[in-house]
Amino acid sequence: MLNDLLAQNLYSEICHIPLIDPHSHIDPHRPTARTLDDIVGYHYYTELAHSAGMDKASLLPDVGPRDRVRAVLYQMTQFDNTAQYMWFLEIARAFLNFQGDRLTLADCNWLYDTAQKLMARPDWEDWVLQRSNIEKVFLTNDFDDPLEGFNRERYVPCLRTDDLVFHLDRPDVRARLAKATGVEVGSAETLQNALRRLFEHFVSHGAKACAVSLPPDFVPQPVPPEQLSALLAPRSDRPAAELAQRAAGVFWLLAEYCRTFDLPFDLMIGVNRRVYRDGVPQGQDLFDQRTSLIQYAELFNAFPEVTFCVSVLSSGQNQELVSYSWIFPNVMTSGHWWYSNIPAYIAQDCRARLQAVPKTKQIGYYSDMYKLEFGLPKFNMYRRILAQILADDFVRTRVYTETQALGLARLLLRDNVRRIFNV
Amino acid sequence: MLNDLLAQNLYSEICHIPLIDPHSHIDPHRPTARTLDDIVGYHYYTELAHSAGMDKASLLPDVGPRDRVRAVLYQMTQFDNTAQYMWFLEIARAFLNFQGDRLTLADCNWLYDTAQKLMARPDWEDWVLQRSNIEKVFLTNDFDDPLEGFNRERYVPCLRTDDLVFHLDRPDVRARLAKATGVEVGSAETLQNALRRLFEHFVSHGAKACAVSLPPDFVPQPVPPEQLSALLAPRSDRPAAELAQRAAGVFWLLAEYCRTFDLPFDLMIGVNRRVYRDGVPQGQDLFDQRTSLIQYAELFNAFPEVTFCVSVLSSGQNQELVSYSWIFPNVMTSGHWWYSNIPAYIAQDCRARLQAVPKTKQIGYYSDMYKLEFGLPKFNMYRRILAQILADDFVRTRVYTETQALGLARLLLRDNVRRIFNV
Amino acid sequence: MLNDLLAQNLYSEICHIPLIDPHSHIDPHRPTARTLDDIVGYHYYTELAHSAGMDKASLLPDVGPRDRVRAVLYQMTQFDNTAQYMWFLEIARAFLNFQGDRLTLADCNWLYDTAQKLMARPDWEDWVLQRSNIEKVFLTNDFDDPLEGFNRERYVPCLRTDDLVFHLDRPDVRARLAKATGVEVGSAETLQNALRRLFEHFVSHGAKACAVSLPPDFVPQPVPPEQLSALLAPRSDRPAAELAQRAAGVFWLLAEYCRTFDLPFDLMIGVNRRVYRDGVPQGQDLFDQRTSLIQYAELFNAFPEVTFCVSVLSSGQNQELVSYSWIFPNVMTSGHWWYSNIPAYIAQDCRARLQAVPKTKQIGYYSDMYKLEFGLPKFNMYRRILAQILADDFVRTRVYTETQALGLARLLLRDNVRRIFNV
Repeated sequence: MLNDLLAQNLYSEICHIPLIDPHSHIDPHRPTARTLDDIVGYHYYTELAHSAGMDKASLLPDVGPRDRVRAVLYQMTQFDNTAQYMWFLEIARAFLNFQGDRLTLADCNWLYDTAQKLMARPDWEDWVLQRSNIEKVFLTNDFDDPLEGFNRERYVPCLRTDDLVFHLDRPDVRARLAKATGVEVGSAETLQNALRRLFEHFVSHGAKACAVSLPPDFVPQPVPPEQLSALLAPRSDRPAAELAQRAAGVFWLLAEYCRTFDLPFDLMIGVNRRVYRDGVPQGQDLFDQRTSLIQYAELFNAFPEVTFCVSVLSSGQNQELVSYSWIFPNVMTSGHWWYSNIPAYIAQDCRARLQAVPKTKQIGYYSDMYKLEFGLPKFNMYRRILAQILADDFVRTRVYTETQALGLARLLLRDNVRRIFNV
Repeated sequence: MLNDLLAQNLYSEICHIPLIDPHSHIDPHRPTARTLDDIVGYHYYTELAHSAGMDKASLLPDVGPRDRVRAVLYQMTQFDNTAQYMWFLEIARAFLNFQGDRLTLADCNWLYDTAQKLMARPDWEDWVLQRSNIEKVFLTNDFDDPLEGFNRERYVPCLRTDDLVFHLDRPDVRARLAKATGVEVGSAETLQNALRRLFEHFVSHGAKACAVSLPPDFVPQPVPPEQLSALLAPRSDRPAAELAQRAAGVFWLLAEYCRTFDLPFDLMIGVNRRVYRDGVPQGQDLFDQRTSLIQYAELFNAFPEVTFCVSVLSSGQNQELVSYSWIFPNVMTSGHWWYSNIPAYIAQDCRARLQAVPKTKQIGYYSDMYKLEFGLPKFNMYRRILAQILADDFVRTRVYTETQALGLARLLLRDNVRRIFNV
Repeated sequence: MLNDLLAQNLYSEICHIPLIDPHSHIDPHRPTARTLDDIVGYHYYTELAHSAGMDKASLLPDVGPRDRVRAVLYQMTQFDNTAQYMWFLEIARAFLNFQGDRLTLADCNWLYDTAQKLMARPDWEDWVLQRSNIEKVFLTNDFDDPLEGFNRERYVPCLRTDDLVFHLDRPDVRARLAKATGVEVGSAETLQNALRRLFEHFVSHGAKACAVSLPPDFVPQPVPPEQLSALLAPRSDRPAAELAQRAAGVFWLLAEYCRTFDLPFDLMIGVNRRVYRDGVPQGQDLFDQRTSLIQYAELFNAFPEVTFCVSVLSSGQNQELVSYSWIFPNVMTSGHWWYSNIPAYIAQDCRARLQAVPKTKQIGYYSDMYKLEFGLPKFNMYRRILAQILADDFVRTRVYTETQALGLARLLLRDNVRRIFNV
């Protein structure tokens, strides 16, 4: 809740802007939760519960969903201070008829049963989207996703390329690639053929973006075809430097196809995978603040025709992002990602962007959600922060009228996404 | 002073929580100041006075204490804008009957005499603790401290290990270690024996933590016994890489004994020693922002049973700390250290922790003080900031009631310390 | 506009303090704009316009000034959210009789004509300075500037040394140096002679500072004369490591002459040149957050007699600057530079400095301007932020009275500059 009448009014108006969510992990064949387990099974809860003391055994497949929910809720009182808890509370209130101020273990059964009943309603998906005022949701599709059997107007395909950039040494990845494209990759040329087919498939099925997440030490660079071919030859004991070079070269090819197929490229920069090796699933990744967008300077220079929508993991690097987006025409600021997706950092990062980056180059927020129910609380968190910044920095200082401030909000939450991704 | 009624009320209530101060440099045999020189002789004042122009000669032993106080106070008008000056003013008001708004050189004599008189009172120590509402204070004990002759209920021993990790090449350190343990260290095995005896001595004398401060480039790692033995052999011209490896290996052994003896390990990460070589004593150390908790990932993975209470030096690294503590069950956020211990950084860092780290995993604040008189102004600084955050982010947004907000404050200032350190 | 009566009052009073602007790029022979093109031709506008979509062709010499203004203003609606736009709006209101709330393309002709008429007035320069309450402005002079033909009381010379440190391999730079000093540089000794003559020339013409901007990876260090001589020998294919060493050595000599001639040394730390190679002029430089003041520790230790006025590019490094200035007597905090010169970062960085650095060691702000018209909006931006901080952190908390707060503002904006640079 906002404790400021002007900000509250702006927030109410902002909530009327139909959202286009430019990045999520929604499964379009199963976009909503079916039980409360699908909600509290979100890694933001399991990892916090585990961090606060929950045994990972509660997450094993043989544990029943109700017991798993109970195990997470049991720990939740230990993290009821967090932004993530607020999302859960807001979901319970907005979608599950919860009326209280606090959620505790005592609410577990009632909430579980209510959720099961409501989520089974045939209009649940529509209701969740309507209640959240979300019009379209971008997906994160594996490169071999057939992209069939769902409403591609509502769920916009997006080619996720992490496997291609970082895991081409894995036989299963090569096999999937061969199956998806009909091309056995063994050289730069065959890789190009395979990638071209992937892009053709995705673009013809309505894909509007290519995306990848990258570790802090990643440096994109072109790799000559002969060299790339050598790096693509199967070899189990390839040294790390060669793997890094191959990743750089594959990435560079992807940028070339983004240019050819006129697709924006979402770069999610800074995550190290499996840092906490014994963590819960998806709760193992962390970052190293020692990374810089200077690593991407050659890329931004080489591909002026490609729009790069850049997400960063730390507030320190956000200042770089603000500056690079202020200078490079093809660099957009994109959302508030993962460890930066809490109000203290969103507020500071968002204010800096609004003060220094052209307003048409900013993608305000994306949900990163796995289930549609999270769109509402996550976007609400952002909308409240945005409303407060608009009130303090724009309307009260007489820089913008309220109407102009709402126009800015509309750019950040809708119009920029439409224009940049051509949806 | 807080300029907000709700925050002011929360602050008043927070002041009623009896503090346990989990990190200080108190000498339990001489815990309070005896003259004003013991107050303004704190390195926070001598270094600021020197930075503002005071000649280091004023700190030489042959200068009388009253003259030294005069020399520092003379410069103080040049740093009466700082948080450190506020501490001094608050000490003067709370403990020395000072009634004014500003302290200047003109107050020197009166203040010096008043301090000398008051500090000589037999109940001074009790009065200072009572007035500050501090119940227990953790110490920082040299490894060869006999830990005798003081109230170990009030002053909790803590094994400080910097000398062991970084200075085992110094003959005096080896001699002290031999004397304290009866073991001449010359190999991994003898070092283990010596360390075991230190831990036994400390634990049997009520120690509740092991602690160390670490430079920004430190990377803990296990070192095999034979290799560690080679690194422990006396040699005056050992290359830096070998010294670093030895430090990493000794540190790793300490973590093993923390596990064996069930002691939390306080890691104070990021300080480079003797950067300003001509600085005043203890006013020579600075940092390098280019450091990452990724350097500790292997440690956190290897010792899930050891609780690591982590302090960092920069607000940039605080975002890493928030994220690592959110993910790793054995990583706690600990206080606001040194160059981050000013309101602008405390506020931002504390807000981020409260929004993303389970509330049970946060040690709100410690004093780092050398004399008990500093507990009150330092904790008050933190309590005011905390009260304002609780007012703005929790109570006004209706996330918590006032009572719940005070419960959170109690965790941060008392209950978490009790549980984590088992006091 | 400030939305706080106390801050507004403080701001009004602060505006009465006559400014000394300690860093600009003013051409004293042509200090003001002559057309609106001189205003919107500032790289802050051309780069934002280009970033938002403007073709660089609009900046070619054959485009008429009115058309160029039109091209930039056409894009300006896309960055009317930025601090830079606010400067422009404030210039239009304060100097060009603009009465509206928004500037759009529709205002172009009227504004252009009005500007041309007003800027042609013979008292324009005096009027701009008087209206801005600026008394003196430091320049940035090439090392071969004759420093003649302008009012050196109003425009204070400053020796800019980037060319000497980084471009001594360029024949044109060597030729300019030979012409300016009568010394053909080919060795450490001849370089020293040439530098001495430059310093003599500058000091005898009223120069009050030496200045240089430095890349993030720069590490100053002394280079022995024989080695420096070898590095100065003409050679076209010198490896990067040797160039870096030569730069470090030349820089070190400059610090020695700063000591000899008692000149403060302005260090502007962190900029990488030509990162966006296809950017507009002066809109190509960016930074790498991975830099540390530890790189300057040896310098600060070696030259205790030289005052270093340090500017940094990132808010992350500002915490280092706060700490280094708190410890090193010869390190001053200086202004809010370039990518840190937006309110979100100024506010955070300024608060930290005011809380931890002696008030006599802080240079509050400089304009960095190329035309005098920018002094008013840039200093106003800073004055508003400062007024708000003084209101919130000092007056409302009863740390300072309003009078004392204004005294602090006077130090930051005038008296420290006078004392440190001896003007």
